[in-house]
Amino acid sequence: MTRFFAEAQNIHGNVIHLSAEDSKHIRTLRLRPDEQFVACDGNGTDYICQLGERNDGTVAEIKEQRKSVGEPSVKARVYIAYQKGDRLDFAVQKSVELGVHEIILFESERCIAVPNDIPKKVARLQRISYETAKLCNRGIVPTVSASGTFATVVDEAVNGSDLTLFFYEAEDQLHIKDVLEKQFSSDTQTKVVSIITGPEGGFESHEVEIARSRNIPIVSLGPRILRSETAPPVALTTIMYQSGNL
Amino acid sequence: MTRFFAEAQNIHGNVIHLSAEDSKHIRTLRLRPDEQFVACDGNGTDYICQLGERNDGTVAEIKEQRKSVGEPSVKARVYIAYQKGDRLDFAVQKSVELGVHEIILFESERCIAVPNDIPKKVARLQRISYETAKLCNRGIVPTVSASGTFATVVDEAVNGSDLTLFFYEAEDQLHIKDVLEKQFSSDTQTKVVSIITGPEGGFESHEVEIARSRNIPIVSLGPRILRSETAPPVALTTIMYQSGNL
Repeated sequence: MTRFFAEAQNIHGNVIHLSAEDSKHIRTLRLRPDEQFVACDGNGTDYICQLGERNDGTVAEIKEQRKSVGEPSVKARVYIAYQKGDRLDFAVQKSVELGVHEIILFESERCIAVPNDIPKKVARLQRISYETAKLCNRGIVPTVSASGTFATVVDEAVNGSDLTLFFYEAEDQLHIKDVLEKQFSSDTQTKVVSIITGPEGGFESHEVEIARSRNIPIVSLGPRILRSETAPPVALTTIMYQSGNL
Repeated sequence: MTRFFAEAQNIHGNVIHLSAEDSKHIRTLRLRPDEQFVACDGNGTDYICQLGERNDGTVAEIKEQRKSVGEPSVKARVYIAYQKGDRLDFAVQKSVELGVHEIILFESERCIAVPNDIPKKVARLQRISYETAKLCNRGIVPTVSASGTFATVVDEAVNGSDLTLFFYEAEDQLHIKDVLEKQFSSDTQTKVVSIITGPEGGFESHEVEIARSRNIPIVSLGPRILRSETAPPVALTTIMYQSGNL
């Protein structure tokens, strides 16, 4: 079924007023008046709609509402260090496919590609999040934002999280499975998990020490070295898997 | 430590004869005579080497040999349907990062992009496998090959596998976690796992029925719709996680 996000302010009782963009999109699909499509409010609710008989394509009739199936029970916040070229695009797209709730970009010591125009970069990645969320059945559009210094990021990540994980390629003792199995077997109340992943060159040891000083587990993602853009979706996969969201 | 693959035939006693390409690469690194690097035989053994004092850069002295740490205990064979553009490049690169043993391409009913020149495509993807394996600490270079019809693929996948999984986006009952937890808790002897993933448009229902008729579990990767190139690395992540290889 065709799916898009409607602005919550455009949903009134039994009708949804379609934005100019969505209205145009709907026209190109040449839907029959009784053909159903989904308008999601971006807040976890899907509205099953049809255009109806007397319709100029700017209004949709709501036939039914349902909880969006694509939202996991765990809210994952992913802190991703700036990376070169299309690596960030990739990390954002795959993280959205895997159920991320929020993506926060940050600058780490070894970042070799901090964008000159950060708001422009954030806007571009937010667009990727929107397009991916629409296609992969999400009930929200995960937000993309930029944070401050590394120390700020660590504080932000811990704040309000039931579990925070710091992924470090030189760690070889603490495995992700040990941490997640313990977390999700002893505590079914885990609602927010934050993960922090580094840039191409990895983290500096003093950054690892800052994380350690905040009691954040320093975790391995295995003996193979993952590229910087691969770590966020792989970490998300393990979290969704262990928490029963895959 | 710098790492590359040496041809097994070039390893003689305590020395490795470097290929012209590797010799050139080593020269550009300007290694000191006592500086160590790794030559992997592509068969799970790493040779810790140095150039030594009297050396023209074509021979390396072996100082020590070790088992490659990057090889998982489970051999994963991934059957990937042909896909458009750089999607296959991506699927191969990420699968190698995640420890795949063998990648087999195949044609499925809804494939919209079967290459005209399959050997050329295979060669290109084999090169991606090689480059990725070198950088991500693998002890082998996963092979890339092309298979025949869908029915052949299903037979090949089952043959010699301890577990075969068929991923289908319309499946919503059997979850990957249920299958893998059962497999790896009851049987520590699982050595070979084959997975089959589809093209952009998904599988045709008669293809699903062929898999079902061979008693292959038809498995979901969750309520979010994963892009075709995302499914192989996500499936591999769950296998490596559950089998203790992450």
